[in-house]
This record gives sequence, structure tokens and C-alpha cells, in this order.
Amino acid sequence: MRDTFHDELDSIGRSLYEMDGLVSDAMRKASAALLEADLTLAEQVISDDGKIDAVRDDLESFAFDLLARQQPVAGDLRIIVTSLRMVADLERMGDLALHVAKVARMRYPACAVPSEVRGTIRQMGGIAHRISTKTGDVIAGKNVALAEEIESDDDSMDVLHRRLFAILLSDDWAHGIEPAIDITLIGRYYERFADHAVSVARRVIYLVTGEMPQPAALSSGITETALGI
Amino acid sequence: MRDTFHDELDSIGRSLYEMDGLVSDAMRKASAALLEADLTLAEQVISDDGKIDAVRDDLESFAFDLLARQQPVAGDLRIIVTSLRMVADLERMGDLALHVAKVARMRYPACAVPSEVRGTIRQMGGIAHRISTKTGDVIAGKNVALAEEIESDDDSMDVLHRRLFAILLSDDWAHGIEPAIDITLIGRYYERFADHAVSVARRVIYLVTGEMPQPAALSSGITETALGI
Repeated sequence: MRDTFHDELDSIGRSLYEMDGLVSDAMRKASAALLEADLTLAEQVISDDGKIDAVRDDLESFAFDLLARQQPVAGDLRIIVTSLRMVADLERMGDLALHVAKVARMRYPACAVPSEVRGTIRQMGGIAHRISTKTGDVIAGKNVALAEEIESDDDSMDVLHRRLFAILLSDDWAHGIEPAIDITLIGRYYERFADHAVSVARRVIYLVTGEMPQPAALSSGITETALGI
Repeated sequence: MRDTFHDELDSIGRSLYEMDGLVSDAMRKASAALLEADLTLAEQVISDDGKIDAVRDDLESFAFDLLARQQPVAGDLRIIVTSLRMVADLERMGDLALHVAKVARMRYPACAVPSEVRGTIRQMGGIAHRISTKTGDVIAGKNVALAEEIESDDDSMDVLHRRLFAILLSDDWAHGIEPAIDITLIGRYYERFADHAVSVARRVIYLVTGEMPQPAALSSGITETALGI
């Protein structure tokens, strides 16, 4: 009976890994759609969001069922409750990829990203994809060292986010208000995406070590530093 | 034994109500700090955020302990798991109030809100406070009718959010990029705050009726409509 139960716990891990893969793929495509003004790709991300939600629904139902059937305690209970929280983070990451894709679609056939911020947005997209791929590896391998690497990726994201504001606020910005609003929101989506990836990684650390790391880097109160430049 | 358990379940409800009260109060003060450029009030919201996090920590530990000790099934299990999700929504609402307060502090002694958007922001702040007060009433009374009212408040918030973008994008906007960025972010904070309130209300409906309402109004993919005007 316990063996079946632990197989079931493992299958939660596999579903989390699968969900992370879908999210990571969605953000990779959303970034490409945004930078290349690729409507087909944007539409694909938008229609595929339902798949992420379906995995979430299955995972939540399964975890709930497991709680009710197996009455887990201690470590096993912690795994299930923590997994439910990771599901919520991953779902939100999927939503943020969706938002990026929607900006791409809204501005099509124009590109929402003016040339001055193109390099920075491309780097943010790159980090978002990398960080979510690592999140998957952390889930699969429960690799604490890699989880710490994700924190440093998040720091890089914050640096890029600040750079974005610096460009928007420079005298050279010639694109007016609407693109500035787009870029402000896009920057926020990427920054929040990375925050949630950090959150997932922290939860894996918690499962492995039994201690939740301090949320210093998890603060999303970036406005101060981002705008106070 | 079951009586003690149900007392404990009730105490989770009371803590959620308490947490909601702190969040609602934080948003009311943050809005006032923002509109009146009141640094003392902004600082108070910022320093009080720790209290919200403390209630969350206590609530999570208690719920977890209850899961482990009482091994609840069916409805009781659902109450605890759903409560943990409400805690996450309420914590995020507290963070969003904190973000509003931080914008107020960052721009002090100036006011971050130009006169053209003052009325709209004031209304958004009013709805945010009202919606979170109602959320508390819904938690306390498990009042499904009031939960539905919250959905309609959220619709009003979305209308105001769109109006905000219309003002930013009008030819009359004379304040340039920096205030436009501030207002874009502030608008997003209020809109997300209302989304999370709707989410809490939906969870109460779920507890009362056993069915989760369709998330039509919960979508935060407002960018399209907000910017596609």
C-alpha cells in the first residue's frame, strides 16, 4: 500500500515537471512571437494555455484525492501541500506567458518592442526560458544547487528590468506613451515570471532540506528600485 | 474530539477574516497615502506588511498541523485546502497594497498621481477597499450573494482600469513617460487586487456550494481590452 502511495507521489512530481515544460515552452514561444511580431505563434500560445490549465486541474484533483485517501503525515503531507503551491506558481507563470503573447497579438502586424529595448527584452525572454527550464530540472532532480542558480538568474532579470526603465526614461525615448505602457507591462510580466520560478525552486529546497529559504530575492517590490533610478 | 476539530476549523475562518481586515486596511491607507502624498501613512503600510505575513505564517502552520493531526476527509479537508489558497490570495493582496504605498513613498514629496487621473485612481482605491471589506463579510458569513456582488465590483474596476489607459493615451496627457509608467503599474496593482478578491469570493462559493464558479471574470488578461481601446 505504501509503495502504491509513493508511486502516486512520484507521479505528482512528474506532472509538475510536465506542467513546467508546457510553461517554459509557452514563454519561449511568447517571447519569439513578441520580438518577431509572429501572430501564428502568439495565437498558439494563447490557445495552448488551456493545456496548462488542464494539467493543473488534473494535478489538483489528484493531490486532493491523495490527501483524502492516504491521510499522509509529516514528509508525505508536506510533499502534497507544497506541490499544490508549486502548481499555483506554475499556473501563474503560464498566465504571464499568455499575457506576453497577447501583447504581441494586440500590436500585430506592428512589433510591440521598439528597437531601443529589443536587446533587453530579448535577454529577459532568454532568462525567462532558461529559469523555467532549470525549474523543471530542479523539480525532476530535486537539485538544491541548481535551485540556488535560479536565484541568481532572478537577480539578472531584475537588473534587466531596471535597465528597461532607464531606457524608457531616457531623453532618447522617441516612441511616446503607448509603447512605454506596453514595455512597462511586458517588463512586469517577465519579472513576475522569474519571481514565481524562484518560488518553485524555494519550495523544492524546502522539500529537500525541510527549511524554507528566506525570501530576500523573492520580493516583487521592484518598483522602488526599478523606478527610483 | 470532533467538536474541538470544528472549533479549530472555525478559528481558521476567524484568522482569514482577520487577515482580510489587515489587507483591506492596508489598501485603504495605501490609497490615501498615494492620493495625498502622505509619507507617514505610506511608511505605516510598508512597516505593517509584516503583520499580514505573520498572520499568514500562523495560519499556514495551523492548517498544516490540523491536516496532520486530524486527517480530515471530504468537506473538512476541502475547507482546509481551500483556506490555504485563500491565504495565498490575501497575502498577494497585501503585497499589492504594499506596492501602492511604495510608489507613494518613492515620489514623495510630490504626488505620484497627476490631476487628470486623480478621480479615476480615487475610484479604483474606493473599489479596492470596498471589495476587500466585502471579501471579509463573505468569509465571515459565507454569503454567496455578496460573493457575486464582488464580481460586479471587479467589473467596475476593469472599466476604471480601461479609462486609466484612455487618459494616458489621450492627446491631453502632458506628464510624459515617468508618471505614465507609475500610473500603468498602479492601475495594474489595483486591478490584480480586485482579481484576488474575486478569487477569495469564488473559493467561499466553492466551500458553500461544492462547485467552483467559472472564472470568466477572474481573467487578468486585461491588457488586450485595456490597451486595445
